[in-house]
Amino acid sequence: MSEELEHIQFELTDELLEKVELLIEQKSDKELKIFLDDFHYADIAEILDELDQEDAVYIIKLLDSETTSDVLMEMDEDNREKVLENLSAKEIANEILELDTDDAADIIAELPEERRHAVISNIDDEDHRAEIKELLAYDEDTAGGLMAKELVKVYETWTVAGCLRRIRGQAKDVTRVHSIYVVTKKEKLIGRLSLKDLIVAKSDQKISDIYISSVDYVNVEENVEEVAKIMAKYDLEAIPVVDDEKTLLGRITIDDIVDVLREEADKDYQLAAGITNDVEADDSIFELTRARLPWLLIGMFGGLGAATIITGFQTVMEKYVILLSFVPLIQATAGNVGVQSSAIVVQGLANDSIKGEILTRLFKEFLLGLVNGLAIALVVLPVSHFLFETPYLVSATICIALVTVIVIAALIGTFIPIFLDKKGVDPAVATGPFITTSNDIFGILIYFLIAKVILGF
Amino acid sequence: MSEELEHIQFELTDELLEKVELLIEQKSDKELKIFLDDFHYADIAEILDELDQEDAVYIIKLLDSETTSDVLMEMDEDNREKVLENLSAKEIANEILELDTDDAADIIAELPEERRHAVISNIDDEDHRAEIKELLAYDEDTAGGLMAKELVKVYETWTVAGCLRRIRGQAKDVTRVHSIYVVTKKEKLIGRLSLKDLIVAKSDQKISDIYISSVDYVNVEENVEEVAKIMAKYDLEAIPVVDDEKTLLGRITIDDIVDVLREEADKDYQLAAGITNDVEADDSIFELTRARLPWLLIGMFGGLGAATIITGFQTVMEKYVILLSFVPLIQATAGNVGVQSSAIVVQGLANDSIKGEILTRLFKEFLLGLVNGLAIALVVLPVSHFLFETPYLVSATICIALVTVIVIAALIGTFIPIFLDKKGVDPAVATGPFITTSNDIFGILIYFLIAKVILGF
Repeated sequence: MSEELEHIQFELTDELLEKVELLIEQKSDKELKIFLDDFHYADIAEILDELDQEDAVYIIKLLDSETTSDVLMEMDEDNREKVLENLSAKEIANEILELDTDDAADIIAELPEERRHAVISNIDDEDHRAEIKELLAYDEDTAGGLMAKELVKVYETWTVAGCLRRIRGQAKDVTRVHSIYVVTKKEKLIGRLSLKDLIVAKSDQKISDIYISSVDYVNVEENVEEVAKIMAKYDLEAIPVVDDEKTLLGRITIDDIVDVLREEADKDYQLAAGITNDVEADDSIFELTRARLPWLLIGMFGGLGAATIITGFQTVMEKYVILLSFVPLIQATAGNVGVQSSAIVVQGLANDSIKGEILTRLFKEFLLGLVNGLAIALVVLPVSHFLFETPYLVSATICIALVTVIVIAALIGTFIPIFLDKKGVDPAVATGPFITTSNDIFGILIYFLIAKVILGF
Repeated sequence: MSEELEHIQFELTDELLEKVELLIEQKSDKELKIFLDDFHYADIAEILDELDQEDAVYIIKLLDSETTSDVLMEMDEDNREKVLENLSAKEIANEILELDTDDAADIIAELPEERRHAVISNIDDEDHRAEIKELLAYDEDTAGGLMAKELVKVYETWTVAGCLRRIRGQAKDVTRVHSIYVVTKKEKLIGRLSLKDLIVAKSDQKISDIYISSVDYVNVEENVEEVAKIMAKYDLEAIPVVDDEKTLLGRITIDDIVDVLREEADKDYQLAAGITNDVEADDSIFELTRARLPWLLIGMFGGLGAATIITGFQTVMEKYVILLSFVPLIQATAGNVGVQSSAIVVQGLANDSIKGEILTRLFKEFLLGLVNGLAIALVVLPVSHFLFETPYLVSATICIALVTVIVIAALIGTFIPIFLDKKGVDPAVATGPFITTSNDIFGILIYFLIAKVILGF
């Protein structure tokens, strides 16, 4: 046997794409097949994501569905959608037959309503069809929406030898055997076994004598983020899913959780940056505008609010026009502090590391704001006094306003995410432009109010 | 056998903590042991994270090291450090003996330099000690720093029956058998097998006849983020680590990758929010200040820069003081657009979904900025004209400046991360206050320059 190992460092080059496009143009099907055969399905998906739609469809139709079903799963959602539009219901059903039930259900859920039924009724395997229908009924944010029906289960009454024989049959459908679930005659989950346990046991032992009764599980209605937390905390690679009666319904594997974590991180990151979730750099200008403009409009209204405040004070403070020069400083500082505070709370809430009283946390944030505020004021004071030659009272105004604004921005940034979380709203929406804008307005208002008190205009 | 399943919904209540504290105070060791025995080690870690230092040390010394080693691994890094300070080198060595080599090396790496040697020389098992020493030599950001030495390997010359016999021995040390690696006599990786394959094969077959020669692997020097990408892309649950000669050195499992992904996401999120990485909400005010103040100072210098610009123009534009009211609008918009653009690029770079020419991308961002800018200008124009009663030319100034500033902020936000990435710098540092501050200054400067041209002061 050869010593050649799979070459994992796949690189998508222009030459490679040109070669594929040329082979398609020449309709050299045989050569194209042989060429693509060398690649992993995840790499073929990367190639297809870069080809134009017709070429991608051409390749999907050319390769056998054992490969193309995996390729489709790995493709970018938007590109997959376009390819599926060019396949008949029967063709899609054949792809789906090759997929695990969870992936199959995901693909069907993406189809337009009217095509779903056509595709489902074209799935030849009756069991597979029934299982996919069951999965489609669950909310996609729940354990039910994430689980697959494929799993290896044994009844407590079986022997080790009987088990091994039957597992060979079941395991064919299961890509990876993480755990073997032990159930009663009524399909209730009562424990688990590992392949290792089975191999080590004597062949005439009964499953009921050797199984491990402590098994982690989640309810089918559990939120996927909660499932991800449980699996990460307890280092699980798979977890069984049960209903309220503990009936074994399916299992969730860690690779699905990796996807959930990545999507969750991307979503929070985009929200913090002021982008409605679910866009990528390669989306159309229309889609990107739809995701970005709403947040810019929030910022715009904030800016107009600030303009109103400034205009209101401008008429009464003619002597102190210099105050206006420091508006950007106040505004930028308030915005930065608010985002820092809210980000750290949002992250703490996501990791369950925020405990204790809300008042304690606010007091800590108050102290933190005070320390940071005084540090910044200490730099700004000499700069404004010597470089900008502001009168004493104006310098004092700027510095007192800075400290006050930093403290208040820190408190607002801390309070809002905790408040939203308690109300059941995703606290991540409170970060980004939302916090920045409210802090901008508050900051500028506080600045002028303090100026009014100190300078007495 | 009972039908009782492990109760996964652990909740850390005040009553629970008080009970533990009371048992410690009363020195009811036996009762405490029985009580804690019911909990998963990850739950015990959560309890210890909330206890004060002495109590946590008390429990670590009370329970057997099979449990406490896992508990220590799951604890918060800061708390673990404090507990380890209270254990002798011998006690730490005993904990480490129970851990997998990768976890053991991580814990030792956290110790102060002078304690490391004492702990290592106290590890009784010579093989374990040598393996840990080997792992400590690798950079923590490389595959070598992440891998464990525990794995199941077989030689190509063995038979299936001999294999199964020997695997029973090796598998004892390995928590989960993902893959069985096939090596030559010289320990070179040539393929893999699954337990499933072994069970299905005839017992007198040779490994060299049944192994799968296509196996993914990574080099020991590979960056961990790259390893995470490879494992996520190819849906791998474990990957072998080799040196340049393909000698099998260790393996990385998906649960370590889950941790890498979470840390990476946290780091990027914090950078975007202007927090130096590696702080948590529960850290001290000093640590939090150290993480936050530098970014606020960047913002502060930006604000002072803006003050200089405004003061410079103020003297020549007395007639148009109204322009100053719109400074916050310009500033906020520039900041928001910049963060949006940079975040989407940073994310695209992280997911490898940014392809094609940099000029194409900048042109797209230019169009996007134009569309968003015109949309916002269309709202601001009537508002400024009717509500703020600004003269025609001032309204025009504000709107032209808005569109220009949005376009330029979008271009800067796109260009800087791509530029940094090409230079080998983590593009995530370019998000947050850094981008916001530079856009603030540029934005305000552009605003006044346009005003100068249009209004001619």
